[in-house]
Amino acid sequence: MITPDKLSLNTATVREKWNLANCIEGCARHGIGGIAPWRDKLQEMGTDKAARAISDAGLRVSGLCRGGWFTAAGAITQDVIDDNRRAVDEAATINAECLVMVVGGLADNSRDLPHAHELVEEGLARTLEYARTVGVKIAIEPLHPMYAADRACVNTTRQALDICDRLGDGIGCAIDVYHVWWDHELRTQLKRAGRDRLMAFHICDWLDPTSNLLTDRGMMGDGVIDIPLLRSYAEEEGFNGLYEVEIFSAENWWIRDPDEVLETIIERGRTVC
Amino acid sequence: MITPDKLSLNTATVREKWNLANCIEGCARHGIGGIAPWRDKLQEMGTDKAARAISDAGLRVSGLCRGGWFTAAGAITQDVIDDNRRAVDEAATINAECLVMVVGGLADNSRDLPHAHELVEEGLARTLEYARTVGVKIAIEPLHPMYAADRACVNTTRQALDICDRLGDGIGCAIDVYHVWWDHELRTQLKRAGRDRLMAFHICDWLDPTSNLLTDRGMMGDGVIDIPLLRSYAEEEGFNGLYEVEIFSAENWWIRDPDEVLETIIERGRTVC
Repeated sequence: MITPDKLSLNTATVREKWNLANCIEGCARHGIGGIAPWRDKLQEMGTDKAARAISDAGLRVSGLCRGGWFTAAGAITQDVIDDNRRAVDEAATINAECLVMVVGGLADNSRDLPHAHELVEEGLARTLEYARTVGVKIAIEPLHPMYAADRACVNTTRQALDICDRLGDGIGCAIDVYHVWWDHELRTQLKRAGRDRLMAFHICDWLDPTSNLLTDRGMMGDGVIDIPLLRSYAEEEGFNGLYEVEIFSAENWWIRDPDEVLETIIERGRTVC
Repeated sequence: MITPDKLSLNTATVREKWNLANCIEGCARHGIGGIAPWRDKLQEMGTDKAARAISDAGLRVSGLCRGGWFTAAGAITQDVIDDNRRAVDEAATINAECLVMVVGGLADNSRDLPHAHELVEEGLARTLEYARTVGVKIAIEPLHPMYAADRACVNTTRQALDICDRLGDGIGCAIDVYHVWWDHELRTQLKRAGRDRLMAFHICDWLDPTSNLLTDRGMMGDGVIDIPLLRSYAEEEGFNGLYEVEIFSAENWWIRDPDEVLETIIERGRTVC
């Protein structure tokens, strides 16, 4: 069971109907313990104003979504570095527990995956260097392998931790059950990560069947993921952060009343998580 | 470059328009070196008759698709074991270089992935025991992680080889670029496999975007996979088998004239593989 105070609302879950101010107010009203803004919602509200509202509402910030996207141009550009520095600054301003990195897939018109891996590591290293100076933690989110081409070429917890091992302090993983539930070595890799590198834990569900690669994620309990088991792997390592709910669902949850969505999240947290 | 004599036609690629007799005749006419029947096509033609036709046409059999499906009932049933024994016998009859195993996903209404892994290993062990007595090689096909729930809960080459290590001689991997192209440790795992355990190599392409999880595979060259690079990993280990073309494509290649499909495969083999 996850009680509401241990839940966090990722704004993507209600992104079609609520702006960030609505999300902050809604979390407070429903007793949800934290929030995880996407940067578009944050910038729309204004980072300083959002920081005050989040603080006034007594919410934790389980993460800022998202930095990364290092690969599109086929080289690390100053624009990308600058944008990631801004993301670090925003994460610091809202007191986010980490900046979540979606690292980017293949460059446009490229098939060179090893080169994409190199770009990602360079981009992460340069962002981390800056993040350390302002005390922001960098969390690599391994994305499901079906996103390797178009979103992120870091696709397993092992791969993310290999990068973390090379880059040193201040960088870890954001684990989303949707992306990693299938991985036979998830438990051993979460053990390898350890508490300090388990920086975020996202929940939703894998629907069977899944009708769309991007926008058909399920509400917890509606799919095949054994969320209590996966949580236990993290908690064995001492993870005691918030459980952040991030559901991309164009045909279902995105078109419902957000208050109903939050009520459902809270109920599922109590019953199936 | 892959010359036609080094190609094999998986019957799934033209499954909507050609039966196995058509496929055998078509491969011979186009100078394609091998064939890989699915069991439904094989049984429809009759295994003995098919074996003679394949042999008369001078074709190699790069694999028989497919054994496995160990998990659906939540236990290893006698029916499943018997069906896998029949698959082994069919593979022997047509002189297949391996029997490809799609191991099965979660049991119906189950979220218990560790249990599915146990069932798979038990089913593979029992099938292997019989296969050794008739000289048929068993090739585990790691499927893309997006099929973990509904088709196969063995999803990486590492995971497949871990099983092979435990089960011993006579079992290896069927590598399909579609399923494994994203894997950052593919090269090291193919090295670990070694020549004897690299039993089959399937090619097609990953389309970006991909519109359907099952039936939107691409023709070689139409997607993002660096096929020559992935081939080189296998060939570094001494792989010298056929390159088997298996394309699930409901909206494109399945509705075209199979002769056009084979001509395209041959042209792409020469130009982009």
